Amino acid sequence: MARRALAEALGTGLLVTVVVGSGIMAARLSPGQIGLELLENSIATALGLTVLILIFAPVSGAHFNPVVTLVDHVLGPRDSPGATRLSAVLVYVPAQIVGGIGGAVLANLMFALPAATASTHARTGTALWLGEIVATAGLILLIFALPRGGRGAYVPAAVGAYIGAAYWFTSSTSFANPAVTIGRAFTDTFAGIEPSSVPGFVIAQIVGAGIGALIVLVLFPARSSS
Amino acid sequence: MARRALAEALGTGLLVTVVVGSGIMAARLSPGQIGLELLENSIATALGLTVLILIFAPVSGAHFNPVVTLVDHVLGPRDSPGATRLSAVLVYVPAQIVGGIGGAVLANLMFALPAATASTHARTGTALWLGEIVATAGLILLIFALPRGGRGAYVPAAVGAYIGAAYWFTSSTSFANPAVTIGRAFTDTFAGIEPSSVPGFVIAQIVGAGIGALIVLVLFPARSSS
Amino acid sequence: MARRALAEALGTGLLVTVVVGSGIMAARLSPGQIGLELLENSIATALGLTVLILIFAPVSGAHFNPVVTLVDHVLGPRDSPGATRLSAVLVYVPAQIVGGIGGAVLANLMFALPAATASTHARTGTALWLGEIVATAGLILLIFALPRGGRGAYVPAAVGAYIGAAYWFTSSTSFANPAVTIGRAFTDTFAGIEPSSVPGFVIAQIVGAGIGALIVLVLFPARSSS
Amino acid sequence: MARRALAEALGTGLLVTVVVGSGIMAARLSPGQIGLELLENSIATALGLTVLILIFAPVSGAHFNPVVTLVDHVLGPRDSPGATRLSAVLVYVPAQIVGGIGGAVLANLMFALPAATASTHARTGTALWLGEIVATAGLILLIFALPRGGRGAYVPAAVGAYIGAAYWFTSSTSFANPAVTIGRAFTDTFAGIEPSSVPGFVIAQIVGAGIGALIVLVLFPARSSS
Repeated sequence: MARRALAEALGTGLLVTVVVGSGIMAARLSPGQIGLELLENSIATALGLTVLILIFAPVSGAHFNPVVTLVDHVLGPRDSPGATRLSAVLVYVPAQIVGGIGGAVLANLMFALPAATASTHARTGTALWLGEIVATAGLILLIFALPRGGRGAYVPAAVGAYIGAAYWFTSSTSFANPAVTIGRAFTDTFAGIEPSSVPGFVIAQIVGAGIGALIVLVLFPARSSS
Repeated sequence: MARRALAEALGTGLLVTVVVGSGIMAARLSPGQIGLELLENSIATALGLTVLILIFAPVSGAHFNPVVTLVDHVLGPRDSPGATRLSAVLVYVPAQIVGGIGGAVLANLMFALPAATASTHARTGTALWLGEIVATAGLILLIFALPRGGRGAYVPAAVGAYIGAAYWFTSSTSFANPAVTIGRAFTDTFAGIEPSSVPGFVIAQIVGAGIGALIVLVLFPARSSS
Repeated sequence: MARRALAEALGTGLLVTVVVGSGIMAARLSPGQIGLELLENSIATALGLTVLILIFAPVSGAHFNPVVTLVDHVLGPRDSPGATRLSAVLVYVPAQIVGGIGGAVLANLMFALPAATASTHARTGTALWLGEIVATAGLILLIFALPRGGRGAYVPAAVGAYIGAAYWFTSSTSFANPAVTIGRAFTDTFAGIEPSSVPGFVIAQIVGAGIGALIVLVLFPARSSS
Repeated sequence: MARRALAEALGTGLLVTVVVGSGIMAARLSPGQIGLELLENSIATALGLTVLILIFAPVSGAHFNPVVTLVDHVLGPRDSPGATRLSAVLVYVPAQIVGGIGGAVLANLMFALPAATASTHARTGTALWLGEIVATAGLILLIFALPRGGRGAYVPAAVGAYIGAAYWFTSSTSFANPAVTIGRAFTDTFAGIEPSSVPGFVIAQIVGAGIGALIVLVLFPARSSS
């Protein structure tokens, strides 16, 4: 379990490093061109996230995301048989949150910023929350539908591609992950989120995860092996 | 059949959400830079469409497109044996259209716009119609040639890649799908199409689908298993 | 042989349509931003070329390129056993050239331009010719090394990726194909090449193809099955 | 061994040609837009690097990187059984360095620049060195974790994707390779690095490689076959 917790912390941390670091680089190199910045940020995230899942999936399942771990617990084993046990949930989720914060710190330090600063980027309101619900429902649908449809091998690339698209098609730029959301509160840069905006995002993500899990159960009632 | 209809409605709807939502985001973040907007819109669409086909193909075949369903009916079973029956066509096509409209509404709401507004973006004329004929002929050729050439597993990524390219190489930005065209009439944003331009596009798409099917029959007269 | 000739003509033609069409769209939507135009053009080409190879390879081998056909004749069968015969060369090459010209015409018409106009875009000089030598040597190395290394299944995506990169890392933007070069002389748009610049490019491509074939023979002297 | 040395020299050389050449093209076509230049440079590098690994891996393992060769020597055979022997290290590393310099010369010549010029682009300081440590640790983790996790076939695309992301999420734009770093000192263009900045980068890369190897040993203590 220690190796798996380390994998979740490292993977979630590096994911936040990718998101925050590429956001800082984009904002520095393309100042004032927010669309181009998001394009740079989204391409880096899509590629980096795919690679991180490829690396860590054999160790921990590469959840990197508390709502993925929770849905995995509820729906049953996906690819790491022990992940569904409550004891695993209680280890994975703190590891993901600690990792997410550490990843933001690492990105800040690489770009010569203070190790941690509270973000001042407000992200709130019904439209953004609806964006997070859609983003998270789609992510959960993807992650659990693919193995049930016999296409589990596509998960790493498909999750990267999905997030790359969801940066653009959701109004919230698709955080879709409570641990990453908390980590992104610790950097006052492009990808940051004001601490007071975090609870609204996390609630929307939990609602979206529930909707996504329901769609999985309706569309894929019988399980096939991945 | 209910599950398959739901999959077609959800898949087509989310495809329109991806197209319309990323168009709104691109236009807001890169105002006045139409080329950059289309680049952002096309990358998000290519990635999102691939993911949606991966998710829904095991349930319904992931047509998301009335002309794909029609050609599948005419050419014979592709990967979902029942899809070619006329009864399936009569269920799939309405599900795709309803889904397409719903997807536009969802995108509008995520970006705090009225649920539905008629587009004022005129798209008409011989050159654009020729663009739609080429776009749809190529899409049909791709979708039916790959399984006949023993490469059916490449369909999801290849369709995403094709549409990503066709946004650029056709003059019409490659709608290539009557259900998506109808859905895009319900949003007065970047990806919208004026209702009075819809019939011309749909006719061109049907013509293109016929040409594509003929090329499939000429190049791949004998069927190999996918 | 008629089906194979048709596949080579259609595939080469659609490749030129992708290159020329996306160049026109890019130049119209991103005027004055040559770098962004080439980015749009190169992404569309990389994606479109991969898809075209996937479609046509089972029919004709998807050469789309006289120097690929010639090297295939010299080095022996690659994936279409008959393609190496001299009789096949004599059919493939004219089909590729006719297709290439037709593809430029189709792109011109889709964008409401005269069917054919001689390009006025001069592309000449030692540096650009060196660029074409490098571009074509790399392309030949890739196409013949992958099957010899047991990775023939990667050819479609790898060729698309290679050309997407070579648009940028060669000074000539990597035509690397005599049939496509001739076709691109028939459009006075972004991707065009002045007719008087064509012979220099074609000679450089033949030189590059020879160098690429030599490297293949040195690195992969023994053949393994793809 | 001669063929393998040639493969390492050619592969590392062409990698530097891709990095330097696409940097020159980007800087010429998108002057003053550094973010867009890096986007063009990073996409070309990601695609080109993947292709080069696909081509050369069956011959030499496609290390292209002295720290990869060194870690391979220390951790044991990866995919080319002889590569771990000290004699192979002593051949590979000089071949990589000579190739890297040659690749910069080729890029310079293709763009009509003097064959070799010392770069004047200073890249130094704690933040950039931390960037190189992170970049190289991640690269080593990726390259050695994937085969140990049974996913060795993903290495070419995953390394390309990783570098494409790391151009953005590390402050140093992720050189992560001593041979490439030395090669890039020979061009006074976008991708260059001042000779006096090279030692700092190389030391950081060696430190990062050590950290990466440690993480591999902790997460993947038992070897599974790739």
